Amino acid sequence: MKLTILGCHSATPRTNTNPTSQVLEIKNHMFLIDCGEGTQVELRRNRIKFSRIKHIFISHLHGDHYFGLIGLVSTFRLLTRETPLHIYGPKGLKEIITLQLKLSDSWTNYPLIFHELTSKKSELIFEDEKIEVVTIPLKHRVYTNGFLFKEKENERKLNIGAVLKANINVAYYRKLKQGADVVNEDGVLIDNKTVTKDPLPPKSYAFCSDTVYDESIIPIIENTTVLYHESTFLDKNENLCERTMHSTARQAAVIARKAKVDTLILGHFSTRYNGYEGFKEEAQEEFSNVLLAEDGKFYEL
Amino acid sequence: MKLTILGCHSATPRTNTNPTSQVLEIKNHMFLIDCGEGTQVELRRNRIKFSRIKHIFISHLHGDHYFGLIGLVSTFRLLTRETPLHIYGPKGLKEIITLQLKLSDSWTNYPLIFHELTSKKSELIFEDEKIEVVTIPLKHRVYTNGFLFKEKENERKLNIGAVLKANINVAYYRKLKQGADVVNEDGVLIDNKTVTKDPLPPKSYAFCSDTVYDESIIPIIENTTVLYHESTFLDKNENLCERTMHSTARQAAVIARKAKVDTLILGHFSTRYNGYEGFKEEAQEEFSNVLLAEDGKFYEL
Repeated sequence: MKLTILGCHSATPRTNTNPTSQVLEIKNHMFLIDCGEGTQVELRRNRIKFSRIKHIFISHLHGDHYFGLIGLVSTFRLLTRETPLHIYGPKGLKEIITLQLKLSDSWTNYPLIFHELTSKKSELIFEDEKIEVVTIPLKHRVYTNGFLFKEKENERKLNIGAVLKANINVAYYRKLKQGADVVNEDGVLIDNKTVTKDPLPPKSYAFCSDTVYDESIIPIIENTTVLYHESTFLDKNENLCERTMHSTARQAAVIARKAKVDTLILGHFSTRYNGYEGFKEEAQEEFSNVLLAEDGKFYEL
Repeated sequence: MKLTILGCHSATPRTNTNPTSQVLEIKNHMFLIDCGEGTQVELRRNRIKFSRIKHIFISHLHGDHYFGLIGLVSTFRLLTRETPLHIYGPKGLKEIITLQLKLSDSWTNYPLIFHELTSKKSELIFEDEKIEVVTIPLKHRVYTNGFLFKEKENERKLNIGAVLKANINVAYYRKLKQGADVVNEDGVLIDNKTVTKDPLPPKSYAFCSDTVYDESIIPIIENTTVLYHESTFLDKNENLCERTMHSTARQAAVIARKAKVDTLILGHFSTRYNGYEGFKEEAQEEFSNVLLAEDGKFYEL
C-alpha cells in the first residue's frame, strides 16, 4: 500500500501549495482521492500513469477538493482513453461535469460512470476480491464523506518446506492458502496449520477531510492502519473550527488515539501558517505516531 | 499597454506548459483574457494583484480556455473581495459557474456580473472614456469570440511654452487638449494647432484564439497595433487544421499581413512540438514582425 500526496493544503492553490489530492495504490488499484485544481499537473510531476486511474473518490463539493476533476476528465478524452472511469462523489457532481462536457461539445470517448452519494450512513461503495471501500460520513459545511479503503483478509502463506515434506499435490496449494485442510498423495488428511503460516494482517487507510472533530466516525475507522485526518488549524485558532467546520491538529490526534489507529497523517493545512512542525508537536501531545503530509511526498504503508 | 502571457499552449496543462490566459494592462485597466486551469497560480507567479482584475473575457468554452475560472472566482470570495467582477463569455458560462457556487453553498460576497455573448457579428461589449472592447467572431468547433481592445483617440498634448506665451487661462487647458480653439486673457481667439501637438496614435490589441484561417476577421482587426493569433500547428500538420479548426503559423502571418497589423504574436502552440522557433521562421516567410508567446513573458506595446 502506497500513498502519494499530490496536495495537502486548504483553500486556494498557490505557487508552492496544492489543494487536496492523493493517490492510494492498494492491491493493484490506483485510487485518486479528491482532485483540487492542478491535480493533473501534479499527477504528471509525480509520474503517475493516467491510464492506471480507474476510480476517483470526491469527498465534497468545495472547490479545493474537486475543481481539477473536469480538467482531468477532459485530458483523459484528449489522450483517447477507452477504459471506463468511475467517479464516486456527492450528488450534483454528475451535473457539474456533464454540463461542462455538453457546453464544450466534447463528450468522452470512454465510459464515464458516476456513483452519486447521498447516504448519511457509512456504506459500501466498491468491492472486489481483495479490497473494499466504504464511506465515512463527515460533518462539514456541505455534504461530505471520507473514505475507508480496506484490504480483505489476506491468504495464508505456504510453508513450502512443510508442504513438500507432507507430500501434497500442487493442485491443492490454492485450497491451502484459503485455509482448508487437504488430503495428501498418501491419502492422509493434513492439518492446514501444520503447513501454512498466518497471513500478513490486512491493511487499511482512512481518508477524513474535511470535518469538524466528530467522535461518531470512530467505530468506522477503529484499528485502521493509517488515518489521514484534516488538521486545518492549530490550538490557537481553535475558535475558527466551529464556524468553518474544520479540526485542529490536536483534535485529529485525539480521534487517532481513540480509534486506536497505527499511524496518523495530518494534512489540509491552512496556508496562514509558516511551516507545519507545530502541527506535529501539538498532535504528539495526544498521540505519538504522527506524520505530516507534504505535497509530492509518498508513504509506503 | 502591457501584455503578460500566463499561458500560451493548447490542450492539457503540463508541468512546463500552461493553457491559455493573458493579462492586458491598458489605460489603467487590468483585463484577464481566457482563464485555463491553473491561471490563479500563474497570476500569483507573475505578481499580478488579484484586486486589479475587474473584467474577464472568455473566448469559448473549451477547457483550456476557462477551466481555471471557477477557481479564481472562488479565490476572490475567500479573499473577501467586494469589488464587482464582470465576466464576458459565451452563453452557458453563467450556468456553469453558478451551478458550482450553488452546490458548494458558497455564493460570492462581491457582485458577479455575467455578460453572455451570443451574437455572430462583432459587437461593442465594453466602453469607457478611454477605451472600447469589441468582439471578433471566430470560426472554431464551438461558439468563439476573439476580443479587440482599442484605445480611443488620445487627447492633444499641450505645447506648454506656446500656451503660456499665448496667455491662456488654465481653466481652458482641458478644452485645448480636446482640440478646441479658445479665447485668451486678452480676448483673442487662439488656433488650437498653434499651442498643441498631435497626440500619440491610439493603440490596439486583438486576441484571436481559437480559430481556423478566416479572412472575414480582417476588416475588424485592420491596422491593429498588436495581433495575437493562434498558431496551433506548423505547415507540416496543416491537414489537422480543418478537423480541429485551428491555424498554422503561416496562416496567422497571412492574416497579420493582410490586416496590416504592426506586430504579430504567435501562441496556442500544440505540445506535440519541441521548441517553437519553427513557428517564427514559418510565419516570417509571410510577415516580418513576429514574436513568439511564452508563458510568463510580458510585452510592453
